[in-house]
Formats: sequence, C-alpha cells, structure tokens
Amino acid sequence: MLHSKLIHPKSIVVVGGSDNIHSPGGRVLKNLIDHNYEGRLFVVNPKKDSVQGVTSYKNINKIPKVDLAIIAISAKYILETVMVLTQQKNTKGFIIFSAGFSEKDEAGEKLEQEIAHLINEAGGSLLGPNNIGLINQHYTGVFTTPVPKLDKKGVDFISGSGATAVFIIEAAQSMGLTFSSIYTVGNSAQIGVEEILEYLDHSFEKKTSSKVKLLYIESIKDPRKFLKHTASLIRKGCKIAAVKAGSSEAGSRAASSHTGAIANSDVFVDTLFKKAGIIRCYGRNELITVAAILLQKESKGKNMAIITHAGGPAVMLTDVLSKNAINIPHLEGEASEVLLEQLFDGSSVSNPIDFLATGNAQQLGSIIDFCENDCPEIDAMAVIFGSPGLTGVEDVYEVLDKKIKTSKKPIYAILPSVVNVKNEIGEFIKKGNIAFHDEVLFGSALAKVYNHGTIGQLGKDPDLQFSRDIRELIERLPAGYMPTEAAVELLEYAGMKFAKPYQVRSEEELKLISKSVSYPVVLKVEGPLHKSDVGGVILDVSNEKEIYDGFYKLMKIDGAVAVIIQPMIKGMELFIGAKKETNYPHVILCGLGGIFVEVLKDISASMIPVTEEDALKMIADLKAYPMLKGVRGQSGINIQLFAEVIVKLSNLLTVAPEIAEIDLNPLMATENDLTAVDVRIRLERPKVTSVLQA
Amino acid sequence: MLHSKLIHPKSIVVVGGSDNIHSPGGRVLKNLIDHNYEGRLFVVNPKKDSVQGVTSYKNINKIPKVDLAIIAISAKYILETVMVLTQQKNTKGFIIFSAGFSEKDEAGEKLEQEIAHLINEAGGSLLGPNNIGLINQHYTGVFTTPVPKLDKKGVDFISGSGATAVFIIEAAQSMGLTFSSIYTVGNSAQIGVEEILEYLDHSFEKKTSSKVKLLYIESIKDPRKFLKHTASLIRKGCKIAAVKAGSSEAGSRAASSHTGAIANSDVFVDTLFKKAGIIRCYGRNELITVAAILLQKESKGKNMAIITHAGGPAVMLTDVLSKNAINIPHLEGEASEVLLEQLFDGSSVSNPIDFLATGNAQQLGSIIDFCENDCPEIDAMAVIFGSPGLTGVEDVYEVLDKKIKTSKKPIYAILPSVVNVKNEIGEFIKKGNIAFHDEVLFGSALAKVYNHGTIGQLGKDPDLQFSRDIRELIERLPAGYMPTEAAVELLEYAGMKFAKPYQVRSEEELKLISKSVSYPVVLKVEGPLHKSDVGGVILDVSNEKEIYDGFYKLMKIDGAVAVIIQPMIKGMELFIGAKKETNYPHVILCGLGGIFVEVLKDISASMIPVTEEDALKMIADLKAYPMLKGVRGQSGINIQLFAEVIVKLSNLLTVAPEIAEIDLNPLMATENDLTAVDVRIRLERPKVTSVLQA
Repeated sequence: MLHSKLIHPKSIVVVGGSDNIHSPGGRVLKNLIDHNYEGRLFVVNPKKDSVQGVTSYKNINKIPKVDLAIIAISAKYILETVMVLTQQKNTKGFIIFSAGFSEKDEAGEKLEQEIAHLINEAGGSLLGPNNIGLINQHYTGVFTTPVPKLDKKGVDFISGSGATAVFIIEAAQSMGLTFSSIYTVGNSAQIGVEEILEYLDHSFEKKTSSKVKLLYIESIKDPRKFLKHTASLIRKGCKIAAVKAGSSEAGSRAASSHTGAIANSDVFVDTLFKKAGIIRCYGRNELITVAAILLQKESKGKNMAIITHAGGPAVMLTDVLSKNAINIPHLEGEASEVLLEQLFDGSSVSNPIDFLATGNAQQLGSIIDFCENDCPEIDAMAVIFGSPGLTGVEDVYEVLDKKIKTSKKPIYAILPSVVNVKNEIGEFIKKGNIAFHDEVLFGSALAKVYNHGTIGQLGKDPDLQFSRDIRELIERLPAGYMPTEAAVELLEYAGMKFAKPYQVRSEEELKLISKSVSYPVVLKVEGPLHKSDVGGVILDVSNEKEIYDGFYKLMKIDGAVAVIIQPMIKGMELFIGAKKETNYPHVILCGLGGIFVEVLKDISASMIPVTEEDALKMIADLKAYPMLKGVRGQSGINIQLFAEVIVKLSNLLTVAPEIAEIDLNPLMATENDLTAVDVRIRLERPKVTSVLQA
Repeated sequence: MLHSKLIHPKSIVVVGGSDNIHSPGGRVLKNLIDHNYEGRLFVVNPKKDSVQGVTSYKNINKIPKVDLAIIAISAKYILETVMVLTQQKNTKGFIIFSAGFSEKDEAGEKLEQEIAHLINEAGGSLLGPNNIGLINQHYTGVFTTPVPKLDKKGVDFISGSGATAVFIIEAAQSMGLTFSSIYTVGNSAQIGVEEILEYLDHSFEKKTSSKVKLLYIESIKDPRKFLKHTASLIRKGCKIAAVKAGSSEAGSRAASSHTGAIANSDVFVDTLFKKAGIIRCYGRNELITVAAILLQKESKGKNMAIITHAGGPAVMLTDVLSKNAINIPHLEGEASEVLLEQLFDGSSVSNPIDFLATGNAQQLGSIIDFCENDCPEIDAMAVIFGSPGLTGVEDVYEVLDKKIKTSKKPIYAILPSVVNVKNEIGEFIKKGNIAFHDEVLFGSALAKVYNHGTIGQLGKDPDLQFSRDIRELIERLPAGYMPTEAAVELLEYAGMKFAKPYQVRSEEELKLISKSVSYPVVLKVEGPLHKSDVGGVILDVSNEKEIYDGFYKLMKIDGAVAVIIQPMIKGMELFIGAKKETNYPHVILCGLGGIFVEVLKDISASMIPVTEEDALKMIADLKAYPMLKGVRGQSGINIQLFAEVIVKLSNLLTVAPEIAEIDLNPLMATENDLTAVDVRIRLERPKVTSVLQA
C-alpha cells in the first residue's frame, strides 16, 4: 500500500530545489508554490539559504523531520540522501525524478535496488526513479507543465511513461478534461501501476472518489494483482480506460526495449482487460476522448439524437455511429411537428435534427427540450455547433451549458470551430464542460464506450473433490507431453467426454480389440508428436481386414510405440485449447476446426476462470457463430455443451496450472453430443502454485 | 467548363456588400480587400455611396460592366439582378451565397432553375446558391473565416458543404496544411463537384498545378463524369483523398435528406473510388492528415524509422504502423554503433531510435543523417519530439526544418506538445512545414497512404464482333427475367462456359434425353424464380428411373413449365454476380459460394470495366483466398480461369447495360475447369445507352 505521507504529506523537502525553473528541482518547487501547497516546504541546496522564497538547507542532515522528499539531484548522491531521510528524518514518501538507474545500465539497476531496499526497510513508499512525479488534490509534485485543472470528480490517471503523461495532459486541455490525480511510475523500483491501482481500490469511497480511471501502460508486471484491483474498482462502479502500448509484435518489442519487461502476446493483455472490464484504447486522443465521455452522465441506452446546424458533420457522425451499432432513431409524430414549426424553413427534425446554419440559441433550447421530454426513444444527444465566423455563438453555448447541467439525458457538445470561436469554447470549458472537436473521433469513442457492455461475474474456483483427483494425477506425472492414456484420464476427471481410445501395442492386443469394437473406427499412431504430418491417422476403418492393414502400416512409422483405436465420430469439427505465459492466468481459445481456424483465423479467447456466461459470449463472438446455430437447412450443434466444456477446461486449468499447453482438437459436435477425439497436453515444472495451495 | 471570369475575374461586384462585417456581404468584401484582390471592386448597396472604402452603387443597373458578381441579397431579388448582369453587364462569373432555394422548398427550386437557366443562356458559370464561395490564388471570394494560408503547391479542395469546409480549414490550421484553392458548390444549380474536377483536370499543368486534391462530398450526381476526371487527374500524377459522407445506410439517408440526392449503396461509391484511385477517408481529421502526408515528399517504400525522445508515442506509432503492414526494420551494424556513441547512455538505435528525454538538436541531426545516408533499408522517417516544459525546443525544430528541406527521404514531424511549445510549433509551421500532433492518427493515415498502392489500367472496351452478337440477342428480348435458354446463349456469346442444359417439357422429350445424357445429372424446375425454396432442384440423379421420378415430381410444382437437365458437376462452389444503380456503371461481385457469402459475407467488388489485373486483385482480396490456392492438402482451383470469367462478365455488361441483375451462382471450379451451373439475368427497359451507341 502507498504510505499516507506520499499521498498527503504535511511537509515536503525538495532535494535539489533551485531558482532555475528550467531544472526539475526548480520547476517542481515553483509548481508546489504556484498551486498553493498548504504544508511546510523546505529545500536542500548546498549553495543557498533561500530558494524561490523557501528556506534552503545546505545539507540534508540539517533539515527538520519531513514527510515527503522530492529528489532531483544526480543519481550518485541519492543513496546517501535516502539513508539520512529514512534513518533520521522519519521520511516515508519519496519521489525520485533523477535518471541514471535501471533504465541506464547494471550499475544503475543495483543502485536503484539498494535505494528501494532502504525505503522498504523503513516502511516508506517510493515513486520512481526516472519519473515526472505525482499530482493530487494535496500537492503538485511534478516538474513538468502544464499542470492541468484539478477536480475531485476528474479522472485518476496512472502513466507508465512521464513524457506520454505530459502529452496526454496537453491534448486533454483543449477538450476541458479534468484530472483528480496523476501518478507516473518511472522505473517502478517499488511502486508500479499495480500498487497504485491497489491504493485507488482500497481508498475508494463511493461518494467522494472519482469514478473514472485512465491508464497508459507499457508492461504489466503482476497481471493477477492488476486484474484484482481493476476488476474490483469496476465492480465498485468505476470505469477504466487504458492504453497498453506494444499491442503489435513490433510494438511489443519496442516497448520491451523501452521498459526492459518481457514482451507479452497481445491476446493475454486483451483477455486480461476483458476479464477486468477495462475499455481498451490504442492512442492518446482515443484515450482522452473515451475518458471525456465517461465523465458525462451515463446513458440508459444506445439511441442517439444528433442535433446540428451543419449537415456534413451530422452525416459523418451518423455514419460512424450506425456502423458501430449505435442507433439514430427516426423521429416523427405530433411533438416533432410542433418543434418543426419553431425552426426555420428547410429544417429537418427526423434525426439528425438539422436546424440550419441560421439556427439560433432559442431553437437549440427547444430541440433539446423536445429530445429530453418528448422522445422516450432517445437516450442521449450529440449537439454539433460551430461557426463560419460571422457572428458569435456565446448565447448558443450558454443554452448548451445550461441544458447539459439540467438534462437527465447526457448531452455531448461537438464544437468544431477551434479557430473561429476559440474563446467561446474556452468559456464553455471553464464552466466545467467538455468540448469535442471532431465528430468522427467522438463517434468512434462513443461507440466504444456504449458497446462496452456490462461486466459479468469474475468466476469461482471449482469444488474440492474435482480438484483432488486432478491434483493427484498431475503430481505423479513428469514434465513434457502427457501419454494419451493419462491425458484421457485427466479429461475424465475434469468431466469432459472423450472418444474412448484403445491402446494396442501388439497383434495379440489387436486380436481382442478388433472383435469387440463397433466399426467404423479411427487408427492413430502413438509416439510421434505431429501424427497427421507423418501419415499417422487412418479414418473410417470399417472392418477387421482394414484394422489389421492399418495397424501394420502405422507401426512402421518412425517412433511408433502403439496404435490408438477410437470409434469414428461424425459431426462438426470444433477446437478448444489453452495457452500460458509467465505470470498470467491461462487463456482459453475456441473455434471451429479446419479452415475456420487455419485460413480464417476465426478464434475467440478468454482468460480463466471462464464462467458459462463468458463461454457463451466467446462462442457468440465467432464469425462462424451462425453455422453453430445451423444455416442453409443444416442442423447446428449443442452450443450449451460447447460452453460447458470450455468452463470445464477453465476449472481444470485453475487447479492444474502446470498445464502449459492443452489442445482438444478436434472435438466432434452434433445437436446432442460433443466428444473430443484428440488431445495433447504438456506439463511444465517447476510446479506453479495451484489456487488450492496458495 | 468553368468560365475563366469565375476563376480569374478582372472586376468583381459584391451585390449586397455592406459595412457590417457580420453579414455575408460585408464579410466577403472585407476578405477581398484584406487579401489584396488586385482587380476592380464595386458594391451594390441601395443605401450607400461607399462601403468599406469601395464605391457603392444604389442600383445594379448603374454599375459598369463586371466579370464576376458575388451575390449576398435576399433570394427573391436575385433573378432580376442576374438578368441585368447577364444581359447588360457582360458578367460571366456568379457566386450566390443566399439560401432559400432548392434546399428550402419547391418554389425555391423553381427560382434556382430560372437563375441557372439565365446564366446558362449567357454562357456564364454559377457557383451556388447556398454556398460560402471560392478562394483561389486570384481572389478570396468567401464570407467565412479563417482564410487559410494560400500556396500554389497546397491542396485544391472541393466541398459539397460550406460549414464542413470551414471546419476542415480550421482543423487544418494547427497542422500547417496549406491550400491552393477552395471551392464550395452549395446547391450545385449549375456547377457541381464534377464540373470543378473537370476544370482542374483540363487546366492541370504538370509543373505548376497542385498535385493534391481533397474532396468532401455528400452525393455524386454524375458518377461517370466524376470517374473520368478523378482518374485522369490521378493518372497525370495527382493524389486525391475524399470523404463521401453517407457511407452507412443511416448516414446515406441523412445525407439524402440534406442534399435531396438519391441514396447510393456504399459499394458503388467504394468501387468508384477504387476504380479512380481515390484514397477514401471517413472524417475531417483523417482527411487533412492524409492530405498533409500527401503534400510531403513521396516515399520509395514502406520502411519507416521512428526517431523519438519519448518511448511511449514511439511504441504506439510502431503498433499502428506494423498492424497496417508498414515495416519498422530492425537496425544494426557498424554505422549504428557509431551513432550510438554520439547519444546519451541508455539510448537505443535499433529502431525505434530513442535518444531519451535529454536528447538534443545535434543528436537529432546525427540520427537523421544516419537514416538518410547509412540505412538503405529505411525509406522514410517519423520524428517525435515534444517537451515536458522545462526547456525550449527551438534548436531541435530548426534542425528538423533544415533536414526536412534537404533530405531525400520524407521526414514526418510529430510534435505532441501542443501546449508547452505551442509557439515553437507555430514557428515551425510558418517555415512551410507540417506538424502532426497525435502519433496514432498520423500512423493510421500514413498506412492508408502507403498501402494505397499504384493505379492500374482503367480497362478497355470489348471488341466489336463480341458486342454485335450480344446486342442482337439483347435487343430482341423483353424486360424481366430471361428464359434459361436465352441466358445460356448470352453467356456463350460472352465466352463463358455453362453446364449444357436440356430443356424437357414432355415425357416424349424426356425419353430422348434420358438415353443420351451421361449420368449423374441434376434436374431443375423451370418457371418458379426461387427454385431451391420450392424444392425445385434434385441433385445426383444417376439413372433412367430416377430421371423419370424426378421429372414427374418437379412438373407438379406450381408454375412449372419445364425441367432443365444438366450434367452434375463437382468442384468448389463459386459465385459471380453484378448489381446496378442509377447512373453508376455496374459493380461486379465475386466470392466462394455457400457459407462464405451467406455467413461470412466474404465478397469482393469492383466497378466495370474490370481488367484481368483488377479481377485477380478481387480474388486475392477474398478472406478465403488461401482456399482457392489450396490448403490442408486439398487442391485449389484455377484462379486464372476465375479471373477470366469475371473479365468476360465485365465485357458483357459494358455492351449490355440493360442487364440490371445477373447471378452466376454457383460456378463449379476445379484445378482445370470453371463451369457455371446456374444463371439468372434480369433485363431492364427503357434501354440504357450502350458504349457502342454512345
């Protein structure tokens, strides 16, 4: 947890504070003073007695006890400084701006660890090194500009990159986006994004805390902790939007070289965000536009009225919204006739509501009232109003401001005239409003928010008996690919149906089996890993002669140790599998087999634990979903069974995290049945801790 | 063609000019004066002798002869004014700002037509009514602000919406995008987007004309003219980027209610743009970002170096580029080692090249020189440089400016600090540069431009013999669905292979046929339109008994007039079809049959005439393309044959525009053969003009 003295220090020392406001130490002091820090303030500067009017001490040993130290001196002096602060000054909060640590070289990394160790020992909290600091309601502990407008109900913003945080704050300014707090973690020697999320989670208070969190991150060191606190915040009523840079393979490599973290396959980040309920964004502008939408009143549905004095932007907004499943309901009826009479000739009220270039403030008021009171089919409004430069728009923006504050439905203001009515937009923002400038950026962000949907359950741990059998089996197996027999046993424990396989090693064994099986059957070689590639699978074996021929043929394959005989099952080919990556929970993948996965890459993914609701959503997200339901007169499959098997796999992986890789491919599905006919499982040691042992 | 007096008037009268610069007539006069119009200037204002220092006449009859009239008076007085101007003042150019015409009501439409008629009769050119005017190198004939920076090499911009033009000009300003000319067409009573394109095409001069054209359009009234001139401009070396608003169904309806034009299915616009070679955009910001990229030097390839002083934006840019098939090649070797030594510890030169927050101007120069001279694997550079607010960046932006001007490779400047170094960005822009502000918007626009590819051939008309047979057949058929026999004959003339059908109306005919066909065959009912729906298709009929049973069964179906007997052909199911819409050339669609079209909507489209190159690209664009080439050990089809049939259909449609609808579905494809087994053709009258008769 973050120490309260980092969050709300009663006294701050700026080590390296100076009169030069072009240096980090000088600028942070100026920011603290300019933004009215209310506690006691000291400076350590070997050459001065007073810096920017603040008492300066020439030596760290001389200062009084102090809650928080903001350190902006050369890296090599910092260990000593921290030692004095932790041991003599009862300092618990540390912000270190200086670079020259783990981002630089090994020596720097060692130094960073030593400093973090000292602070850990003292029970303190360290933000940085190599960051730009922290801004909250209590103090402005950053060395950068601009310092944004603070507001308790603004967004809490955590950034893994200082420069990116600055650029985001800059871009947010012209929209009027406000912040409640801003944290930058730098090298995260002690406090990372996860720890700040933990703090925001634990300190959350429904009435007073901000409900919107923004993240810019390049690596997630502790995905389970990240998931725990983001999911918890969201379930408490928060909205979280995040950019995880490095979403492409090349970008992931770039992020790794930047942060030193291991590159993650993006599917892990994506499913982690989905599991938590985070809205994923891919750029700064998108992130702040989504944040600005989240700060407005919540809409009850996805039905928008578009109110405009200019046709073009309304058409483009209609395009982007309707392509993204947001409705622009056609409006008609008596009330709309009455409204039309109040507008100039040539206006349209059918939605988009176009009240023409000559439309005025009074008309805008009437239109908004109409949408608010007379249109139960409308959930939210977007008002587009710019200016060709002839006349002012103060009166229009005043009406807009008033209506935004009094209307029950959210009203989004799209004000495109960033040059002609720049000042009026500034005034509008000063009143606490948000101004969007491009209707298409707004529209795609709105669709992202509105389509985000509700948050499901997080999933429960499976029951104990289920777990015990599986654990016993797993514990006695070595690492590597599991023998088919054991794999099938494992699936049985997990409650999954498998086409019963007979393992045949000799002619004698075959003699027995060949009499008792019901034909047709399938023969598969046991031994080689990629059976199909070596011609190790024979389908549709329909009598005793064929079974003998097949057996001889397969046993001649290099590495063959036995032949597996299974009933031949018909149906639609499905697959279910799982992947694992360091520190992340497993990700389950599913889809249709054959060309659907190989050519069309039609795959759904979800992070465990996967609930039945999750599994049904995974299946419905497949492009081939209509085929599963049945098309062109062909019957579909039992989707419920498909979902159940996914949940069973999720349970299995939860109790057997040693499973590094599992593939049920194919499973054969019909209207009544779902049976796996092939399985491959690989175990990894050293053993990972299972949920039961944790 | 646009009259030269509209483009370059030696004298202008502002009818309705006033001292009130908040009115259109007052503001356009001020714009003309402020931007140094060099010709003679008059005003007509019944109350004044002088307006803004310009001679004013109280009556239109009193003015001298004048080249161009800019009219900003009430609609009802305009007809009379235009009469005087055309008949007495030798006026040839007309810009009418006033509203109250076809956009308002029927009376307005009639008035508009009368005015246009007068101007047509006089051989003049009319821009408007209901527009904001025109800006070019000769005069500033708009009543709006801001008036953008003009530059002969800036973009030529045509807008179907005045307000949208203003918002685009405003948004372009902060980037430094310059304009060569701006045309707004308003109601297009005489001059529409197509006529301005025609003018730009005919007046194009390779050395002096701008090479970048921007369009914002809501409807395309004359698609063939539009295609002719956009394609011509592009083949002369221009780049055209365009927003066609109304790309969604709802948006198209909104645009129609705004412009009164018929809604177009978006596939027609999309294929029209592709045929011409236009880069399609979907919003104002995207449009100007694409335009800004087009104004820079052309890149020789798709390999980018990303140069940055901040990790985050570089990672996000890498993400968006690499997801869109733009390469960020890994850089290494001796030269990069030498470069690394010039940078601060912790920098990275592997690409992205990160020279840290402390990176300076000199280092930036070295990095750019390295990419320019030592990296043949790099085609273009993106430089990201902002500021956290501590120090200035003038020296960095100076280096950037110099290198942009001297480097052979394009260098894109991404300057995110729109607040901290606003003035420096302004200075950078003043030197003629473009500044991008958001790396992800830039990256997706860049990918759009770089992936746009080269322009193919426009396609030729088919030869005459081919045409004559088809025309003869078409001319003797009535409108409506063609009988199968005639349809098959038409396909034969067009050179397409069809599974030979035998039409059987009676037992006697069947007796003959049943002996001679080679089994298996397919039986299809003739008469009902949707054969499958009424059980009118019987597959795999393998002997005489089955053929009789089938015949009796099918002839009992309501509306049955005959039974078609065809050889049963095996292979992969494909489809080829075509759609038609008023004024547009046909669009050909192709894909795999069955679930690929019905469930996965995997369809490619192209506007006729379709060349072999186009057809091969259509096929390669299918998601299922790998299946056509052969996957999972299954053989593919003859793709060349598939393309040839598409070209043959294109030729057929060119000479037989009466074909309103044609479906070859399915065609059966193997490695060696492609045979259509079913066809449906609908003809429409009154006859449309064929290319041969035109």
